[in-house]
Amino acid sequence: MKFYDLSGADNQRFSPFGWRVRMSLAHLGMEENTEVALVKFSQKDKLKFSGQKLVPILRDNSAIISDSWRIAEYLENNYTNQPTLFSSPTDKANEKFVSSWVDSQVHPLIAKCVVRDIIDVIDPNDREYFRRSREHRFGMSLEEVVANREETRTLLKQTLFPVRKVLELNPFLGGASASFADYSVFGAIMWARITSSFDILEQDDPIIDWRERMLDLYNGLARKETAREH
Amino acid sequence: MKFYDLSGADNQRFSPFGWRVRMSLAHLGMEENTEVALVKFSQKDKLKFSGQKLVPILRDNSAIISDSWRIAEYLENNYTNQPTLFSSPTDKANEKFVSSWVDSQVHPLIAKCVVRDIIDVIDPNDREYFRRSREHRFGMSLEEVVANREETRTLLKQTLFPVRKVLELNPFLGGASASFADYSVFGAIMWARITSSFDILEQDDPIIDWRERMLDLYNGLARKETAREH
Repeated sequence: MKFYDLSGADNQRFSPFGWRVRMSLAHLGMEENTEVALVKFSQKDKLKFSGQKLVPILRDNSAIISDSWRIAEYLENNYTNQPTLFSSPTDKANEKFVSSWVDSQVHPLIAKCVVRDIIDVIDPNDREYFRRSREHRFGMSLEEVVANREETRTLLKQTLFPVRKVLELNPFLGGASASFADYSVFGAIMWARITSSFDILEQDDPIIDWRERMLDLYNGLARKETAREH
Repeated sequence: MKFYDLSGADNQRFSPFGWRVRMSLAHLGMEENTEVALVKFSQKDKLKFSGQKLVPILRDNSAIISDSWRIAEYLENNYTNQPTLFSSPTDKANEKFVSSWVDSQVHPLIAKCVVRDIIDVIDPNDREYFRRSREHRFGMSLEEVVANREETRTLLKQTLFPVRKVLELNPFLGGASASFADYSVFGAIMWARITSSFDILEQDDPIIDWRERMLDLYNGLARKETAREH
């Protein structure tokens, strides 16, 4: 099995979707034994075999699966590990809800906080492409995008309200233990942590305690990844 | 057991939180046998026994429970019906996520679509209080709040993205059958349906199919409630 994940200049693995897969693999006890292929933005030719250009991709013998949700489904359906990733069909529907919520409502705000800083961690060869494509998407310079990021963080704090409500009652979004919902929110957090010195959580946000718990999971898997100084 | 629910001039039960409780009772097979006490805004003296002023309230012998989430918990913990409301602790954590998301991200947008129209369905005695308190909250007249509601609906459509993603794969947010997450979103929908002729969903929104399924549940319980013409 081979896991293709996005990487920066110094092999930093900062993709939020990559982190969903990586934590899911760890959840299933498969992370350490999965070979990893690091792919920079300018190395998309490495992904030709998959017929598309996006990481993460999981290659398992003849199976080629892209998209973090479909990879999680594939792992769940093909490897009967304990604990399972989705404990029931209801649970799976709920995990899809949370991951889609992260995609649509959390990622855009985090991007507005850290997109300028991503430039610093990606390969110098990738920087012109990254800046051009993202500035086109935002319709302004990356410096302008992040100029008011304290305000964006306030908006993010409001958006994360349901996360806070669940964590008032439970150690993890999944209840007593971490679930794909946790990995989805945490992927977004790791994306920021690795690429930017700007902390997307305010100092008094109780979500920070959960972030610490997530960093500790699976022998500190995520904590070992080099973060930028906050 | 007695269920205290908010009501309008003609006994319309339009509270989104009331609908969460009502659908939960139906889910547990208890809706038909639960006595209902209708409470208008100006009849909050009926709630004195509860030590607070908000509906819904469930009174079960000596137990007095307010807040729709806590009522759902109470029902689940004290009545061993099938199907259960929360199939597992993970499921319960996820349902809390979705209901908190509705509270914080869906309700404010629906309010901006229908708050002016609520005036028309509540008791004439309640109208001055309602207008004054809501205009104070919004900092403008209710007519101004709803003036751009087509734009608010576009924002609501974007906000409902995760609902749409789950419904692409499942008939209900709970998967194969409806869950408290469905009742939470549906409560918001019923709030709008009963109080306003403005449809908060655009005609081509696939969420409409789900709304029809929800209206059909439990022998058309919600469909029987008088809606304003769309």
